[in-house]
Amino acid sequence: MPKTDGARVVADLKRLAEFGRYETGVDRPTYSAVDVASRHWLADKFAEAGLEPMIDGIGNVFGRAPNSSRRLLVGSHSETQPKGGWLDGALGVIYGLEVARAVRGDPDLQGLGIDVVAWADEEGHYGNMLGSRSFTGALDEAEIDRSQSRDGVTLRDALKAAGFAGRPRIAVDPGRHLGYLEAHIEQGDTLDSSGQRIGVVEGIVGIWNFRVVLEGQQNHAGTTQMPRRRDAGVAMVRLATAIHDRFAEIAGKRTVWTIGRMLLDPNAPSVVPGRAEMQVQFRDVDEAVLARFAAALHELCTAADTVGPCRCTVEGMSRTEPRAMDGQFQALIEAAAERHVPGGHLRMPSGAGHDAQAISHKLRAGMMFIPSLKGISHHWSEDTREEDIVLGVQVFADAAADILKAG
Amino acid sequence: MPKTDGARVVADLKRLAEFGRYETGVDRPTYSAVDVASRHWLADKFAEAGLEPMIDGIGNVFGRAPNSSRRLLVGSHSETQPKGGWLDGALGVIYGLEVARAVRGDPDLQGLGIDVVAWADEEGHYGNMLGSRSFTGALDEAEIDRSQSRDGVTLRDALKAAGFAGRPRIAVDPGRHLGYLEAHIEQGDTLDSSGQRIGVVEGIVGIWNFRVVLEGQQNHAGTTQMPRRRDAGVAMVRLATAIHDRFAEIAGKRTVWTIGRMLLDPNAPSVVPGRAEMQVQFRDVDEAVLARFAAALHELCTAADTVGPCRCTVEGMSRTEPRAMDGQFQALIEAAAERHVPGGHLRMPSGAGHDAQAISHKLRAGMMFIPSLKGISHHWSEDTREEDIVLGVQVFADAAADILKAG
Repeated sequence: MPKTDGARVVADLKRLAEFGRYETGVDRPTYSAVDVASRHWLADKFAEAGLEPMIDGIGNVFGRAPNSSRRLLVGSHSETQPKGGWLDGALGVIYGLEVARAVRGDPDLQGLGIDVVAWADEEGHYGNMLGSRSFTGALDEAEIDRSQSRDGVTLRDALKAAGFAGRPRIAVDPGRHLGYLEAHIEQGDTLDSSGQRIGVVEGIVGIWNFRVVLEGQQNHAGTTQMPRRRDAGVAMVRLATAIHDRFAEIAGKRTVWTIGRMLLDPNAPSVVPGRAEMQVQFRDVDEAVLARFAAALHELCTAADTVGPCRCTVEGMSRTEPRAMDGQFQALIEAAAERHVPGGHLRMPSGAGHDAQAISHKLRAGMMFIPSLKGISHHWSEDTREEDIVLGVQVFADAAADILKAG
Repeated sequence: MPKTDGARVVADLKRLAEFGRYETGVDRPTYSAVDVASRHWLADKFAEAGLEPMIDGIGNVFGRAPNSSRRLLVGSHSETQPKGGWLDGALGVIYGLEVARAVRGDPDLQGLGIDVVAWADEEGHYGNMLGSRSFTGALDEAEIDRSQSRDGVTLRDALKAAGFAGRPRIAVDPGRHLGYLEAHIEQGDTLDSSGQRIGVVEGIVGIWNFRVVLEGQQNHAGTTQMPRRRDAGVAMVRLATAIHDRFAEIAGKRTVWTIGRMLLDPNAPSVVPGRAEMQVQFRDVDEAVLARFAAALHELCTAADTVGPCRCTVEGMSRTEPRAMDGQFQALIEAAAERHVPGGHLRMPSGAGHDAQAISHKLRAGMMFIPSLKGISHHWSEDTREEDIVLGVQVFADAAADILKAG
């Protein structure tokens, strides 16, 4: 079995976290100066590990194993959420690097290789999993042309400023890889609260996003009598309440739904809101549950529109399908975990999206989770116990070796 | 009776609207360059009309009648809402100017005088009715020190840039004025929809404002299972719905209430909101109704806090008391209206706040409304028929003369 160096992994993670450090976390949006610097640093680390480094035209950093007959692709994304955590994404990249080093250092694994990858923009600063979707061929030039950040910077300008414009984009070569493996912090508290130390991911939830718009009439909050009002804010809170009630009735065991974004226009205390907008999102591993939620949402919006006094429209913004992880990969991750922490592992779905779901359209894919303290995620205070980081990389390396050997 | 010149009034209003013209309306925030320019223009117009012009330390523009034994103060505010209407405020100032000209021109009214005023910042760009409250002594230096615009510009800096800093602030002299009279567009559609042409204001509503804060826990929208969530957005929409339901049950005939401003934090589609805030406002001419609403709001917030899972707190932000207009002034405005448009006038409350309510603490006060087309207000498309503007100023001048003569 390959021998990993937990202290080296922790040291590399801490060094990577210096790029954009914010409090105890990291602020490293895709294509920012610190993100670009960190990608060059990663390429250098890949080269040091004996891999062929390459940064492609979307910013993906590859470290390719030379002289191997069978290869596994291992990695995650390296940018962070704004004021995000130091492990979200970074952990999977450094795990990939360490597994590559461990496999190369193991005489029993000659001829087997680990290609490492740091995907660009899984966190969606400019688009939806740009790096992994570029790799699988799901990102075309037209989408690159029209993508931009929330601040209105076009993706083209960002790539140019980063120095990546004009480079070729590396595409999947199905003959090259047995599959794709990704480690990640759980981002929830299932492992942490139950004391389990390894999560074997069974599948990644599908995420469906809708925009609901209520249109009424903007008016003076003092002079417009109640019967005459068409208050889009009232319509929104009534509809949102109905949505939460209805979704609770029809949810599956682990369905989650969120109205995370709401906007009133003009959002002033003395003005009757003329327009309101909310984003409704739900996630499940079962496509039938997602379809049921979508139907309920459309029904409630139609009812609101019919009752009035505000117009109500709903439009789908994005949807990802649930993706199952490879069954053999799950079994081999579980077996490796059982060797190191008997009974200390759990099969579970991923409630968050990951590059593995994009890759799973083209390669067999597997994911492994380690615990997140208190489940805190997308916040600079996100953290994981060092002993879990150290245990995780050894389990992960074992699983990778077993997958390579099984072929 | 004084003879007004309707065409001159319309021409002056159109000229004043050139300062900050926006579409068919005006964008002239208090102390902006166009606002300062318009105040100097008004001072010149007051001088042309034979009045002594003066701009004071808060930006109020006065035109004082010389050699009068009895005087009435007449005016309104001259700044506008952002992208606001051309008549809101401006109408009352130009009516004041025209009434002053008409009274001075009437040999039967010798010894009686009209002081004209254009108050500063009734619209609240920097504070709450700064100009009229400065006049009545309700605005102290400490409040001026701490006031600032939404953009974070301090009132002190704004006054300095406007050239008003260091000037004396003119204070009410109860011996000087018989009372205060203000004309304004209705800003609602009561007159317009009923075909009435003059509104006799009985009183100005009290406005009570509260901030309600919901505190939960920010979390990842994919990995946080529903039973563990403390979603401040869910708590807010449920509470807002309950507030609208309860207020409808206990409202008076003309009570209005508005939740015009809502904020989610961080307001991102994939994040469970950790904090939410809304501003709840209600208005009525009856203080007992306002107190009933406040009690209901506190009850609902306490209940939400008790039920959980989010903390709920409510704090009063501001409250104005309802103010009755002077009974004799109402009668004389009504009598003047009846002479010009028999049966075409209406007694009504004002649902909007006006400088007259601040002044009414120190002087007898009266207000007259003319129609707003479709009740549109605080929007550049606000408008009034020219024939209503012309009729209104004659009724208003008659009423002013009658008040002066009655002493």
